[in-house]
Amino acid sequence: MIFLTFAAADGSHLGLLIDDNVLDLTKVWPGAGQASAPRHVGDLAEAGEAGLAIVRDLASTANAANLVALASLTLMAPIPRPKKNVFCVGRNYKDHIDEGMRAQGKAPAPLPSVPEFFTKPPTAVIASGETIPQHANVTEQLDYEVELAVIIGKPGSNISAQNAFDHVFGYSIINDITSRDMQRRYGQWFKGKGLDRSCPFGPVVVHASALPNVADLRIVSTVNGEVRQDSRTSRMIFDIPAIIEHLTRGLTLEPGDVIATGTPSGVGYAMTPPHFLLKGDRVTAEIEGIGILSNSIVA
Amino acid sequence: MIFLTFAAADGSHLGLLIDDNVLDLTKVWPGAGQASAPRHVGDLAEAGEAGLAIVRDLASTANAANLVALASLTLMAPIPRPKKNVFCVGRNYKDHIDEGMRAQGKAPAPLPSVPEFFTKPPTAVIASGETIPQHANVTEQLDYEVELAVIIGKPGSNISAQNAFDHVFGYSIINDITSRDMQRRYGQWFKGKGLDRSCPFGPVVVHASALPNVADLRIVSTVNGEVRQDSRTSRMIFDIPAIIEHLTRGLTLEPGDVIATGTPSGVGYAMTPPHFLLKGDRVTAEIEGIGILSNSIVA
Repeated sequence: MIFLTFAAADGSHLGLLIDDNVLDLTKVWPGAGQASAPRHVGDLAEAGEAGLAIVRDLASTANAANLVALASLTLMAPIPRPKKNVFCVGRNYKDHIDEGMRAQGKAPAPLPSVPEFFTKPPTAVIASGETIPQHANVTEQLDYEVELAVIIGKPGSNISAQNAFDHVFGYSIINDITSRDMQRRYGQWFKGKGLDRSCPFGPVVVHASALPNVADLRIVSTVNGEVRQDSRTSRMIFDIPAIIEHLTRGLTLEPGDVIATGTPSGVGYAMTPPHFLLKGDRVTAEIEGIGILSNSIVA
Repeated sequence: MIFLTFAAADGSHLGLLIDDNVLDLTKVWPGAGQASAPRHVGDLAEAGEAGLAIVRDLASTANAANLVALASLTLMAPIPRPKKNVFCVGRNYKDHIDEGMRAQGKAPAPLPSVPEFFTKPPTAVIASGETIPQHANVTEQLDYEVELAVIIGKPGSNISAQNAFDHVFGYSIINDITSRDMQRRYGQWFKGKGLDRSCPFGPVVVHASALPNVADLRIVSTVNGEVRQDSRTSRMIFDIPAIIEHLTRGLTLEPGDVIATGTPSGVGYAMTPPHFLLKGDRVTAEIEGIGILSNSIVA
């Protein structure tokens, strides 16, 4: 099952992708028009197994009259406004750590012993197809980072790695747009990671049941068609179960929470010479089996 | 005007403190029972000047029949569930930076040239009177940090220091409960700052118009009655306008956003020997003109 969120006359609607068409789940949800109909992927994650059972039932009885062409829809971020900051993991691919040290003229660092967490605010979240401001008034070094995003489906704290996948609803893509000069200057990374519209998210969420090989997917980014990052999720230092185990030590995850799991090498600031994002650039973030998240930079 | 949020049979209600009594604003709001009645301080911050005009009108006509004794109410956090993570400033009092370096056996650090930002998730927020878990399964070093909290009333980005106070709704207190061992171990501070129930917030929000001397207030914390931190907000390295100017560079603040502005010296980990919070301890965070935020540690 592949879910997406799209713009409708009365706000966001939740859709189920069926080939090149979309079943408008919000419209056909039992008791439609009532408050119970999910309006985006986060609502569905909160609805738990009961919600998925309704989806399966609706999908099995979908007919052409209920379907709309994907191409005719305006996508929104799968969760247009997360209820808390997006959780992010830093330095989770060895080759990205190495290129970062090299770019700073430093010796290679040892592998981290634990994952490093920071956040991006809900005001950063945008959809595929939306524009990213260059923020030229505050940064000269806007950069991209393609990342696998995990959407939580079942609440929990102190979750063991062994049980971690029980808590995953599905997967998506995040482009962790970063101001490198602010990231460095402000010490803690939040400021350089928190710019408005710096968290492209989507285009869809693939349900966990439809992505069994999540631990080994090709992950790619491009700028103006040129491949910049090209790696595999198998190269993460901390895999999804390890990330969830560490993150939930004393911290409760809730349905609809989003975790960006880190980026591989190939970011712009580590190129020789560095290449930063400028207005007019188009940046894509692509993960095998999920899709392509595409955004352009504007002044 | 002093606002608070309290538990009612149908969820949270917004109250206005009048001496030792509370006017139940949610109950008496024009069109009460409708969706428009604010249910907590965050709703009122979102209602802007129009909301405050209604409050002033209701306050001027309040009579004894509409008032309830403060002592009879169960307080909630002023904003029980913020819509994004709480913004926090680190290392904003010189004496706290000095004690941190000393505790780590390091030389004194130069003053920071910009404020350092991190966040605490909404799952951390609790009210005065609620309990803080010791989290003994994940930390041996639970610590306190009394901080002045700023609540945003008017949205904006790229706000100049000169205009910053126009965007402030009011002030409160946050105790930034921190796991020192996790803060160190996980590199970025989010993990050590993000534990469940680690963000006591309240007891009230004082409207900005009622706290003109916010830049020079006594700020104190105690553990089991013993004074641990005792400073003044005038000793901040970055004052409220500077914090807002830096934070909003490329980032939009929204009504109901909360900013914790950093803590002075006297935290437990810098004591000789260090003193960490243990079950049974009672910790208070107090700021002149706002009140006392009091919480106990439980297993």
